Amino acid sequence: MEDFKPGLEGIIATDTNVSFLDVDQEEIVIRGYDLIELADKKTFPEVAYLVINGKLPNNKEIQDFEKILLDDSAFPEEAYKVLELCPDSSMLMDVIRTGISFLAGYHSESDLMNTNEKSNFTKGIRLIADVAVLTANSHRILNGLTPVRPDSSKSFSENFITMITGKTPSDKEVEIFDKILTCYIEHEMPNSTFAARIIGSTLSDIYGAFVGAIASLKGPLHGGANEAAMHMLLDIKSKGGHKIADDYVMNRLNNKERIMGFGHRVYMKKYDPRAFFLKDYIAELAPNIPDGEELHKIYKIVEEVMAREKGLYPNTDYPIALLFYLLEIPIPLYTPIFFASRTAGLVAHVIEQHNNNRLFRPRVLYTGPRGLKL
Amino acid sequence: MEDFKPGLEGIIATDTNVSFLDVDQEEIVIRGYDLIELADKKTFPEVAYLVINGKLPNNKEIQDFEKILLDDSAFPEEAYKVLELCPDSSMLMDVIRTGISFLAGYHSESDLMNTNEKSNFTKGIRLIADVAVLTANSHRILNGLTPVRPDSSKSFSENFITMITGKTPSDKEVEIFDKILTCYIEHEMPNSTFAARIIGSTLSDIYGAFVGAIASLKGPLHGGANEAAMHMLLDIKSKGGHKIADDYVMNRLNNKERIMGFGHRVYMKKYDPRAFFLKDYIAELAPNIPDGEELHKIYKIVEEVMAREKGLYPNTDYPIALLFYLLEIPIPLYTPIFFASRTAGLVAHVIEQHNNNRLFRPRVLYTGPRGLKL
Repeated sequence: MEDFKPGLEGIIATDTNVSFLDVDQEEIVIRGYDLIELADKKTFPEVAYLVINGKLPNNKEIQDFEKILLDDSAFPEEAYKVLELCPDSSMLMDVIRTGISFLAGYHSESDLMNTNEKSNFTKGIRLIADVAVLTANSHRILNGLTPVRPDSSKSFSENFITMITGKTPSDKEVEIFDKILTCYIEHEMPNSTFAARIIGSTLSDIYGAFVGAIASLKGPLHGGANEAAMHMLLDIKSKGGHKIADDYVMNRLNNKERIMGFGHRVYMKKYDPRAFFLKDYIAELAPNIPDGEELHKIYKIVEEVMAREKGLYPNTDYPIALLFYLLEIPIPLYTPIFFASRTAGLVAHVIEQHNNNRLFRPRVLYTGPRGLKL
Repeated sequence: MEDFKPGLEGIIATDTNVSFLDVDQEEIVIRGYDLIELADKKTFPEVAYLVINGKLPNNKEIQDFEKILLDDSAFPEEAYKVLELCPDSSMLMDVIRTGISFLAGYHSESDLMNTNEKSNFTKGIRLIADVAVLTANSHRILNGLTPVRPDSSKSFSENFITMITGKTPSDKEVEIFDKILTCYIEHEMPNSTFAARIIGSTLSDIYGAFVGAIASLKGPLHGGANEAAMHMLLDIKSKGGHKIADDYVMNRLNNKERIMGFGHRVYMKKYDPRAFFLKDYIAELAPNIPDGEELHKIYKIVEEVMAREKGLYPNTDYPIALLFYLLEIPIPLYTPIFFASRTAGLVAHVIEQHNNNRLFRPRVLYTGPRGLKL
């Protein structure tokens, strides 16, 4: 057997038509397009359609697609009862996971276990819709608020942010929220997508792939980074604001503490194109809240120090954390919203895995004892 | 980047002290011991202790350990309500998964997300206990029966099979059930263990690793094989019995249909040592039920045909399927019991992953289009 690469770093785990991180050209390729161009010119549902179907939709196709994404007529009342039974100590990602796992039972066994493309597509679109509903309402129920149903007169992104905050967003807020969702939609083979494909490769169903992916995305080394980044910005603000930001970061670096939202296994020391695209929206939203301008100052200083001291640049979690905060989205929702957006990419990967399947079953390097006798 | 191996076949995904499939010497090495010797001479809780702690327990240690495995005082009543809310169409593996996901919420966030060895050990032992309770009672509730609580006066295996069947087993039945659990306890890096380690590598919690693993084990190419094997044996019986068994298998082989319970990615064309060890128990249990001897005849003929035609030997799912049937365990419980046993191995792997972590993040071979413009 060949050399062992911890974390499978640099190992090709699968072939795919869905997306590719072209590190040399600093481009996130989505079905042949540049993700940043898509985020700039297309809406989240349009890009979701592209990610799953491999082509951009025409007018009729996108209307039909967005209609399904705003239809919760199949969403069972019992699911709300399950969310209500979750203890107050539950983490939001786990409540959503329980909800997804529960919803699988509303398919017949033959429908659920059907891995052909059409069946996965139908179940997958329902899952994108249901995860948005679960995300907003798990948060509402954990906080003693009444669940809200999707409003099919709105766009997907307007409806989603309205279900979350309970407030009517401005057009600018909807636009920025939609662009964030698009930036999170698909990103080659992060741990959560890998988990989904591994589970899918046993010919287990798309719901199973989704519960594995959300369990992965919850981890502090993966999706949890956006929440950690925001907590740090707020910690700096409460401890003295932008004047102490440089010292604060230096202190953490000297103590060998990790600064979340910077660097990336694949991008290494380059700027994440999504972070570069999104950061310009911060100035537009900063006046939204009393501390917005101050947080933006802190944000820029931390970025400068990380570039100066470590040569590390923000990944997409860093600007998104502050943008979510400026959109008045509660911090525990940051990672769940990341997951809700990534569902589109996950649907595409599960379909692709099932269409051309090979069971994942690697080997190990055994380093324990041998030859022990009872 | 190097060559792409579909399914990561032959690729080393991690180092481990837990177990190793020595294909050349046909030995399943568990913490240095031969699994078959362990199954022959030790009980499931003793081997579970070994798998997790790396050493066999003394008398006091195994007593304390088994006590925890039979203690359900922390199991919340609300969990039964969640199981009851699951629709009748739910698959049993999915109901158990929903239960595991739900139970995570009974830990505080800091306890749940604590990845140190002691915390993982404590949560892991609870999970082994809770999964047995969830397995038996998810089945009971889905079938309109009253849940049963563990009886701490019994051994783990006697209690587990009693909760499942509702009948008092003979000593011989308990012994064979215990040996089956031991044979399923740990097996290097199958897809489900791999899924658990991948999820754990984001520093996500042990509950998240478990929901990913059970989602994987549900797949027809993985844990689902034991149920499929039993359905085939029953199909042959109903279509004419052992006299048509040879023709039945030939027919399926000629139609390029898969015969479940034979062959294994790693063992290839050798006999799975667990299957070799367990097959001798079939004759002891065959008189248990009216059709037992006939099913045993069919079993042997299918095995002969597969060896003759394909050079393939049974894997552990093949004898276990028939043994479970002879133990009067309902077929939808076969894969869940496999998972309940494998929880011990999963605890060991999550502890090991968290103790020496490296995020799993492989790359892809992109085969889609490039350079498309909007």
